Amino acid sequence: MKRIALGVQYNGAGWQGYQVQPHGQTVQDKLEQAIGQFACAHIGTTCAGRTDAGVHALGQVVHFDTDIKREPHAWVRGINAFLPESIGVRWAKELHEVVPYSENPAEFDPAADFHARFSARSRTYHYLLYNHTVRSPLLAGRAGFCHRPLDIELMREAVQPLIGEHDFSAFRAAGCQAKTPVKHMYEIGIERHGDMILFTLRASAFLHHMVRNLVGSLVYIGQGREQPEWLGQLLAGRDRTVAAPTFMPDGLYLADIEYDAKWELPRENARILPAF
Amino acid sequence: MKRIALGVQYNGAGWQGYQVQPHGQTVQDKLEQAIGQFACAHIGTTCAGRTDAGVHALGQVVHFDTDIKREPHAWVRGINAFLPESIGVRWAKELHEVVPYSENPAEFDPAADFHARFSARSRTYHYLLYNHTVRSPLLAGRAGFCHRPLDIELMREAVQPLIGEHDFSAFRAAGCQAKTPVKHMYEIGIERHGDMILFTLRASAFLHHMVRNLVGSLVYIGQGREQPEWLGQLLAGRDRTVAAPTFMPDGLYLADIEYDAKWELPRENARILPAF
Repeated sequence: MKRIALGVQYNGAGWQGYQVQPHGQTVQDKLEQAIGQFACAHIGTTCAGRTDAGVHALGQVVHFDTDIKREPHAWVRGINAFLPESIGVRWAKELHEVVPYSENPAEFDPAADFHARFSARSRTYHYLLYNHTVRSPLLAGRAGFCHRPLDIELMREAVQPLIGEHDFSAFRAAGCQAKTPVKHMYEIGIERHGDMILFTLRASAFLHHMVRNLVGSLVYIGQGREQPEWLGQLLAGRDRTVAAPTFMPDGLYLADIEYDAKWELPRENARILPAF
Repeated sequence: MKRIALGVQYNGAGWQGYQVQPHGQTVQDKLEQAIGQFACAHIGTTCAGRTDAGVHALGQVVHFDTDIKREPHAWVRGINAFLPESIGVRWAKELHEVVPYSENPAEFDPAADFHARFSARSRTYHYLLYNHTVRSPLLAGRAGFCHRPLDIELMREAVQPLIGEHDFSAFRAAGCQAKTPVKHMYEIGIERHGDMILFTLRASAFLHHMVRNLVGSLVYIGQGREQPEWLGQLLAGRDRTVAAPTFMPDGLYLADIEYDAKWELPRENARILPAF
């Protein structure tokens, strides 16, 4: 039995999030149905990062185990043939042999085993925010929107205390299932491109709603409604109830998952859309 | 009574084209409903260029006449409040006094009267084509797709005979209602940005399906399936039946309408999406 990794992209606007649900209207439901139709067998999958309803992915990574032998390009084309057009497999990579869990329910061995979630070293999210007095129909469902002017220098100053290992409880949703609120934030980039602001956050992992909660509070700071110091104070206070409301999902993209180079996974260029 | 011009954008993916239809599922239906709700009166509109089902607009221009007095920003916000999120007014501009047609059904006077369609000097369309071996879920409905390699130098060579005034019957749909197939093509740009190809066509006006028919034939040339000389031969032959099939609407954007500077209309930056 071999472990296969897939690179998956989706436009989350029409889906009820990534994770399997009884109603079946999720990305994972559609992906497992498509793999099942192509492979003529039910095959369960594991992803690197579960995303919420309306959140997109440029670089989701999924693994599954199978006895079926196919060339990587055959997995890509075959699964895509059964997927809706807003979900797609971008690449497939055959990895190591695996012993079926039923025969050997051993612990995950990080040195020998690839696991889409456990082997991930960091996750990168983009948040795309349209900052203009008038909303854009072509960005609906694809970017957050703020009609008030935002000062990105204030926001850049605000994020400095978040870099490093911290307890991010202040930005954690009530239903978050993570074992610990302590995560390592490696970098937060904030760039303006005309009317668009692009936030790029790379961390060991993210809590539920963490990026959208951070963006909500940063928008308060960018408007001058709160001082840049406020973000560090929120972090230190670890109290979700005092931070700003969760920002809309529309502009959130799971952009990249970082793994050890030994797995030789293809990496998509994590651009949101081509330059024009 | 004053004439008002609006700049309108839309994502055409969910709409049955621009022009009013009995089923009501068009951009113009939704726009006139929204103007009617805001103005509490039925107000008919005239556009610069009717687009087909699935075709987008970045720079559609529409005019209407009304006795109602509102600031330009009030027209923008008021109409947008009643529009679906995939359609939006970007700007409004109050123009000259008009005598109601019922009192004076005079001819259009190009020197004195603004008319969204008749006053337009040129129209610019973009066609965005994703050229990659695997389709992109985030570009579904927003870009055409060709999985075979395309040589843009061959396509650039092919379009040279189209520049200038020509009879474009070879690229005209059967149902086209234009009075004449003779149009003036001012420029055709073809640029590659990584996996994306951007076609930009500016002409006095376009026949029905003209851009999509041209792109279909250019894709044959870019693949090497036809020689660059073929496009000029098609043009000279004026026979629609020998050109390539009409290309998909997904990548087509009405980008800009050019008017005399005296009308002082705001002009949107006709970028498809911001650079990332």
